[in-house]
This record gives sequence, structure tokens and C-alpha cells, in this order.
Amino acid sequence: MKISELAKQSSVPAPTIKYYIREGLLPEGTRTAPTQAEYDESHMRRLRVIRALIESGVSIAETRRMVETLDDPPAQPHLLLGAAHAAVTPPVDETLDLTAAARLAAGLGWEPEKCDDAVLCGVARALQGLEKAGFSVPDEVMPVYLESIRRIADAEIAGVPTDSVESAVSYVVLGSVLAEPLLLALRRVAQQVSSAERFSGPAS
Amino acid sequence: MKISELAKQSSVPAPTIKYYIREGLLPEGTRTAPTQAEYDESHMRRLRVIRALIESGVSIAETRRMVETLDDPPAQPHLLLGAAHAAVTPPVDETLDLTAAARLAAGLGWEPEKCDDAVLCGVARALQGLEKAGFSVPDEVMPVYLESIRRIADAEIAGVPTDSVESAVSYVVLGSVLAEPLLLALRRVAQQVSSAERFSGPAS
Repeated sequence: MKISELAKQSSVPAPTIKYYIREGLLPEGTRTAPTQAEYDESHMRRLRVIRALIESGVSIAETRRMVETLDDPPAQPHLLLGAAHAAVTPPVDETLDLTAAARLAAGLGWEPEKCDDAVLCGVARALQGLEKAGFSVPDEVMPVYLESIRRIADAEIAGVPTDSVESAVSYVVLGSVLAEPLLLALRRVAQQVSSAERFSGPAS
Repeated sequence: MKISELAKQSSVPAPTIKYYIREGLLPEGTRTAPTQAEYDESHMRRLRVIRALIESGVSIAETRRMVETLDDPPAQPHLLLGAAHAAVTPPVDETLDLTAAARLAAGLGWEPEKCDDAVLCGVARALQGLEKAGFSVPDEVMPVYLESIRRIADAEIAGVPTDSVESAVSYVVLGSVLAEPLLLALRRVAQQVSSAERFSGPAS
């Protein structure tokens, strides 16, 4: 199909599609004339992935690294997860103090060789953000965070499909980021439900 | 203190502080001369909160609504949570189909009167994002999401401090947003730990 048809079917304007091509997110179509290229279903699928990532708040540069991982995934599932995380995690910041993050992560079963430093830096950065705002997670809440998040991660890793490399890659790479807005949205619903039950008594 | 001193102590440049004042995020200091104003500890504390929210990805408009809620909180704890969520949740989108979101939320104990529609729209939007990308949460993972997220929310709501209105307000308003980066960062660590254990066997 022509770019105009791809734009129509995907609801992504043609200039935006051209921008994605220039940014290296979407491969060029097959040239059929100096000013014309032919696109197919693979472009349509990729375009859907790009839009979903960008709408989840992933930057253009991170999206580029995510689709590069989709196109050229490491063979081992564990490296694949690391590559997906690396695509959306800022690099290691040597100035960050990782002590508190490491102590917290130990509650998740963390040991240095089981996890990239960049991902641990993410925890340190989040803790720093809380501290700066003068906010602290209560002592009785943190263990529940650790236990519940570990259960979520275990279920997710157990759910990595084994039927094909392609489906495993898509699940790990996209799931690592795209499930985030869902988890946060579910948390808000659960907080309101829990709050309604605590502060107004259970519905009769 | 003068704005230059506030800038120094907070590490926020004076022009940025002035921008926050113009945007209604930070109250003006007390005028001591036509071109001079005096700032105090309350400005310092508020500045830390503003920075933490903005660094968590909260927009200027959302931050303004958050600090308005901090300054003029509803008296009932349940309304307070609703106000904090409303500050950072896009308004209800009438065109969204809420059927799948409501079915999912029912697994969290959701009933229509226990939760704002805007928050439920957040779930619908997240589901739509997954669907557009051709990604689906496996059937065996979703119940773990619901159960774990509900446990997290229950612990958070049980943790609302009761010693003072001010601490309850700060906990609910800031916690609803500022804990998000921590939960997501912990999830990445937990995924890598779980993946290392599944795909390389437990460390000896």
C-alpha cells in the first residue's frame, strides 16, 4: 500500500509516519519510484507498537531502542529482559548512593549479579525523589510493596510464552513497558475502593 | 530570605522559581520593597514538593492542581484521595467503552459508587493502549495483578496517618503520585531477579 493508505488505515498522519521513518523507528517502504514507496502489514504492526509506546510516555529515543531490540533480540530470555529494560532506563549514575536501594531490593531477592546496576539506580532515583519531597513510605507499607511486586514479577516471568521466539520477544519487550500504565491505573481504582471501604464502611 | 538565597538553598534557579510563582505553583513572598520579596521555610518545603512532582513526570497543570489540593484539602479522607487523583487524571472521556475496564476492576472490589469514572477511564485507556499494540496480559497473570495491587492499596490506605490532618493530606496527595516511580522501579528489579532465577537457576 502507499503511505497515504497506511496513514488512513493506521490513523497516523503521513507526515508523522515520515517523521518516524527519519527517526529510525519505522523501516522505509520498498521504493517503487523516486518519490513513492510501498508499505505492508509489517509496517502497520510496527506503527501500532510505536504509537502504544509513545502514548505510554516512552520517548522517541527509548522507542527507537525498544524497536531495535524487537528487530534484533538477544537469544537468551534473560538477556532479552535486560535489553528491554536498558532501552527505557537512564544509564548508571555513578554519583548515586545505591545503599538504600540495595537494602530495599534485597527484600525482592536482589543480589548484585541478578540485576543491572542501571535498574537499581532507578530505585535509588525514586527513593531520592520521595526524600526530596519529604515523603516516606510507612514502615508497615514497604514490606507489602516488596512482597506484592515480587509476586507480580514472578507471574510475569512465568508467563513468558515458550511457543515461539517471536512471541517471547514481543511479550518481554512490550510487556515490560506497556503494562506500567495498566498497573498504575489499577492501583488508583484499588485505592479508591479500599478508601471507600475503610472510610465509609463496606457497601451493604 | 531573599529569592537569591531561596534559589541557593533549594538548588532551583531564581528564574525557575519566578516561573513557578507565575504559574501559580508557589505563593509569592511577602513584598518588602517594589522589587524585593521575603521568602521563608514554607516556600522551601513547597519548592521541594513541586520539584519532586515535576521530576516524577507530573505536568505543570497537574502540579498546580496537586498543590491546590494540599492548600485547600477536602475534610473527609475519602474525598481527599479523590481530589488527589482528579488532579492527575485526565477527565472522563465519554467515548471510551468502560465495559472491559469495569469487568477487570470488579476483581479489585470495584463497584460504580466506590470509584470516580475518571479513574476507571484510566484503566480503559491503559487497556486500549495494550490492545492497539497487539499485546495482552496472559490469563494467568491478570488475577495476580488484581490481587497484588489490591494488597498494595489496602496497605497504603491502612497507612494513612491519623495524628494530624496535615500529615494525612500530605501522605494521601503526595503518596498517590510519588510512590509510582518507586513501584515501577521495584518491578524492574523484581523482574530481573525473577528472570535470573528462572532462566539461570537460583544462585548457589
